[in-house]
Amino acid sequence: MWTIVKFAYTGIAVKDMDQSIKFYTEALDMQLLDRHPIEETRGEVAALKSKDSPQLLELNWYPDSQYREGNELDHLAFEVDDVKTQIDRLTKMGTQVARPTEVRSKYVVGFVKDPNGVWLELFPART
Amino acid sequence: MWTIVKFAYTGIAVKDMDQSIKFYTEALDMQLLDRHPIEETRGEVAALKSKDSPQLLELNWYPDSQYREGNELDHLAFEVDDVKTQIDRLTKMGTQVARPTEVRSKYVVGFVKDPNGVWLELFPART
Repeated sequence: MWTIVKFAYTGIAVKDMDQSIKFYTEALDMQLLDRHPIEETRGEVAALKSKDSPQLLELNWYPDSQYREGNELDHLAFEVDDVKTQIDRLTKMGTQVARPTEVRSKYVVGFVKDPNGVWLELFPART
Repeated sequence: MWTIVKFAYTGIAVKDMDQSIKFYTEALDMQLLDRHPIEETRGEVAALKSKDSPQLLELNWYPDSQYREGNELDHLAFEVDDVKTQIDRLTKMGTQVARPTEVRSKYVVGFVKDPNGVWLELFPART
């Protein structure tokens, strides 16, 4: 049987579309590729990516959503030039730290929260 | 300021690492790139991708995790050759349907659940 099953993107739910787009584009430097309403759900969808990464992130907003944090979504990971510099920049913008920055044996790693409470890992670009 | 912030991968939490790897490699045809223990958490991590997609999925397992489903992770999306064929194949393998397959005006879309309850959208490859 000819089978194609290809992981295409990750869709997260958001509490406020404007606020989430602002965060991912301004704080995390992502590009907004598309944003449009979804007739079936009466909600809205937006697609984003980072300039030099093919990974796609979809933001989904639903009217009347009872947004609930779980831990099925462990974290979204972002590669950065310098972890401490970026954590500083993000916290100055009002981003909440999720866990104190850890200096591990191999690398420094930090965790912040997006406006929805989703944990974002910042890790150093591999050299 | 020189800033690099690049979305690198999506990490989900899993209840059982063996079961989840089996599902994503056998049912969804992904390739296992790496699997190793994490000293700091006493857990385990695995990385997967689809053959023709650069999107990376990370599976995270933690000992003593109280795994909890939320809706912050809306869904993971998979591009497939034929939605109905793939849903049939997956359900025959014991995969649960999350929502009846919808024949929308532009395309057919179906939702199944991974072993952790995460919703997986199957949508047709764009031609």
